[in-house]
Amino acid sequence: MKNNNDLLRLRERQPLYIQAIDALTQMIETGQLKPGAQLPPENELAAKLDISRSTLREALRHLETLGLISRRQGVGTFVSIPTGPGFFGGLERLEPFRYLARVANKKHSLVQKKVEMVKASRKLAAVMGAMPGIELVRVQTIEAIDGIPCVYFDDYFINTRGLAEKLTSYDDSVLVYMFKSSETPLTHTRSEIYAIEAPEDVASQLDIPVGKPVFHMEETYFSSMGEIIGVGLSYFVTDRFRFYVTRRAVRPTI
Amino acid sequence: MKNNNDLLRLRERQPLYIQAIDALTQMIETGQLKPGAQLPPENELAAKLDISRSTLREALRHLETLGLISRRQGVGTFVSIPTGPGFFGGLERLEPFRYLARVANKKHSLVQKKVEMVKASRKLAAVMGAMPGIELVRVQTIEAIDGIPCVYFDDYFINTRGLAEKLTSYDDSVLVYMFKSSETPLTHTRSEIYAIEAPEDVASQLDIPVGKPVFHMEETYFSSMGEIIGVGLSYFVTDRFRFYVTRRAVRPTI
Repeated sequence: MKNNNDLLRLRERQPLYIQAIDALTQMIETGQLKPGAQLPPENELAAKLDISRSTLREALRHLETLGLISRRQGVGTFVSIPTGPGFFGGLERLEPFRYLARVANKKHSLVQKKVEMVKASRKLAAVMGAMPGIELVRVQTIEAIDGIPCVYFDDYFINTRGLAEKLTSYDDSVLVYMFKSSETPLTHTRSEIYAIEAPEDVASQLDIPVGKPVFHMEETYFSSMGEIIGVGLSYFVTDRFRFYVTRRAVRPTI
Repeated sequence: MKNNNDLLRLRERQPLYIQAIDALTQMIETGQLKPGAQLPPENELAAKLDISRSTLREALRHLETLGLISRRQGVGTFVSIPTGPGFFGGLERLEPFRYLARVANKKHSLVQKKVEMVKASRKLAAVMGAMPGIELVRVQTIEAIDGIPCVYFDDYFINTRGLAEKLTSYDDSVLVYMFKSSETPLTHTRSEIYAIEAPEDVASQLDIPVGKPVFHMEETYFSSMGEIIGVGLSYFVTDRFRFYVTRRAVRPTI
């Protein structure tokens, strides 16, 4: 089974160069192509992706402008090495933090993971379209890079049989568990994003002063069937980790 | 010319229900379908979009989970009315702030627009792949909702003949001018997003206390050919306006 061709096939209705961009981006973001690594020669890479060299070149030009690769005249094309403080993740991709860290070659650790049953507050219940007081599984996770806490996740999931126990004993990321769930696998979110002053509980979890700006997301988790399966609140210290996003021009019609 | 079909044709290689989601989202976000408005009957809407009713239903189910529409049993389907303080914009869409405001039925005003020529700092030049000291067109814009400043844009564009004069006399959004530019129209960005403490100049522009958290974006503006045409720094007061985004699960391959 050729992994790259699988990636292409999934989106076969998109133009080839877009598929190539997606495949290469994923190879970079998952670490198959590591920061600083030289890309294979164009003819080899084109053959691997089963596209023409001119299509590959078009994809590479876009990846260069996105800062993911850089070309050195007469030397070759290389995966960019992220610079600056902290590291990055693509916002549109709902990916476990520890995987982003691994790809960026950062030392990741779990500071805390706490799983408990709680009753839904009125607000949480409203977001979930559930009754106030319904039992939810709450998972609080604090993750660190080089021993310094970067993010605090406060997730609430609709309770299914044994979920709390399963999440407690699950070693990998909670997101990965929810992706793989046999009942209603998590496929996408709707996320609102804010800059807020760290409230007291968040500040103490992240070991930052109360009131320091944090990047906050309020996410509603959905299954492919459009069911709401949970709500996630997350707090990132942005000088330790931040997101990037590609925004596309919309020519206004009004 | 049927506008909706035009939208569909642009992305004709995507699955139909995705095209339908995009077309309906755009109709909602551009105000063709206003908050609170009832959607046309399914057969009518399906005909308008030139898709089957089952494809339309699939699209509607997704839009419902994204919170853009809501169905009332036995009554019909309605465009959701945004709730909460402030209002929202989709982050992946690079759209003029004043259009987002118009769609949300908010009173928008331009507090300030200042166009000048500046020399590129070392940092700006590096981002743009240009020489330090090269002349750039700087545009500072402050925009308000109901008279309260919400966002400060600090944009730098590669200088082309007469650009500063053209931007000074252009009445609509600077973004719209750049979208329409005959030379290298702006098509997409790479944007890094942060929560930061408002520095002194930003705080005074936005009329907020120094140090208040603001949502900050550092954007590199690209043309469809992958050329860098500018850099945008923007600062949003998130209790007055905030972004949302859809994040899609990525099953890790490492």
